[in-house]
Amino acid sequence: MPRPTFELFYWPSIQGRGEFVRLALEEGGARYVDVARTPGGLAELTSMMRGSAKGLAPFAPPFLRHGDRVIAQTAAILLYLAPRLALVPKDEAIRVHAHQLQLTLADLVAEAHDSHHPIAVSLYYEDQRREARRRSEHFRTERLPKFLGYFEQVIERTGGPRLLGRTPSYVDLSLFQVMLGLEYAFPRALAKLSRRIRRLRALRDAVAEQPRIAAYLASDRRLPFNEDDLFRHYPELDAR
Amino acid sequence: MPRPTFELFYWPSIQGRGEFVRLALEEGGARYVDVARTPGGLAELTSMMRGSAKGLAPFAPPFLRHGDRVIAQTAAILLYLAPRLALVPKDEAIRVHAHQLQLTLADLVAEAHDSHHPIAVSLYYEDQRREARRRSEHFRTERLPKFLGYFEQVIERTGGPRLLGRTPSYVDLSLFQVMLGLEYAFPRALAKLSRRIRRLRALRDAVAEQPRIAAYLASDRRLPFNEDDLFRHYPELDAR
Repeated sequence: MPRPTFELFYWPSIQGRGEFVRLALEEGGARYVDVARTPGGLAELTSMMRGSAKGLAPFAPPFLRHGDRVIAQTAAILLYLAPRLALVPKDEAIRVHAHQLQLTLADLVAEAHDSHHPIAVSLYYEDQRREARRRSEHFRTERLPKFLGYFEQVIERTGGPRLLGRTPSYVDLSLFQVMLGLEYAFPRALAKLSRRIRRLRALRDAVAEQPRIAAYLASDRRLPFNEDDLFRHYPELDAR
Repeated sequence: MPRPTFELFYWPSIQGRGEFVRLALEEGGARYVDVARTPGGLAELTSMMRGSAKGLAPFAPPFLRHGDRVIAQTAAILLYLAPRLALVPKDEAIRVHAHQLQLTLADLVAEAHDSHHPIAVSLYYEDQRREARRRSEHFRTERLPKFLGYFEQVIERTGGPRLLGRTPSYVDLSLFQVMLGLEYAFPRALAKLSRRIRRLRALRDAVAEQPRIAAYLASDRRLPFNEDDLFRHYPELDAR
């Protein structure tokens, strides 16, 4: 019997929060469909948002359909997926730690997003550029060193080279994506921090070389970073 | 043998995100200590943040110590606590749904916070008042109706009167806290929405009448809302 297919529902033209799920599905070797990138798929996503499926309607993409189940919220999707794709150890205490790290990454991602949208998601960047400049400066100089310093310390304390120590997990994939996104959005700020995040950079490189991730990144399934996405490169928001 | 004591670590003078954990501990009838509100407790919290305990250091309060375990991130703490306090059904699919709702509440809470701190947590409100006014208007008129409309619909679709249908759960307690916080911070905006959130208001009232919650709210363990907290009442940020 073939393994059930996972169906990911996410916006078809951005990496966004869906990318954390895509990376897990790819590394887990899952049979999956990125529904909104198939014909008629975006309409299905919209219909699911309006509550066409039974059970709990999602508040926002990404969400995952697996058989009868529909699960939303990136960290909850990964909590559900990771054991099924062997991307986290069996031990419950370790799983709780992995989830805790994923939620802290989610906080960092939300702040990275708000650095270019500090006033409202409904407004264009150009309509909140002044506020974005102000928020980004605090983000770059206070929040980014704090978050990245924390994750660097996590690797140091577990002995590394992974966030959970020697065992690779889905949280490494998410950290990899956050590192790439931050380097895309704030190349100068990240360069300034580089000596303080050696372990994070080594982990980023190690994940990029995992065969399934390397194949994914080279495929047309991987969308390029762009300025409609979560991580945006606006030079005026980066360090000088 | 007495049940092990849960130790909550959170700032001693605000409700904040710790309140979601306090409400669960209270409703669950747990033996717990609110460590930072005991002599020497705040110093212990600070020391734990610096990594004095073994294992993963928390990124930020709240965090929970249970025996050898230290768990941070509000939603992860509740995911861990709820089954141990019989605040969620055993069925895995329902637990995933509950967690998903909790994470969506966390998103709403983060946006409520940023309505008065849109630029930086390190700045006073007074130093970002203009931006706060702008962000709050979008929050009140776009985000708040969207989030509350979503939760109202969740209750409607499950048949109610609770978020998970007939079964009370920890997510109801968190929603209760969010409702009270929003009514404190934005009384006029909430009044305008009141006819569209009848089920949410009924749920808020039902939770307030649960004997353990009522006893907690009447005790000095319940801190008052205040303007150093997550939910702040600044009349200029509310609807006209």
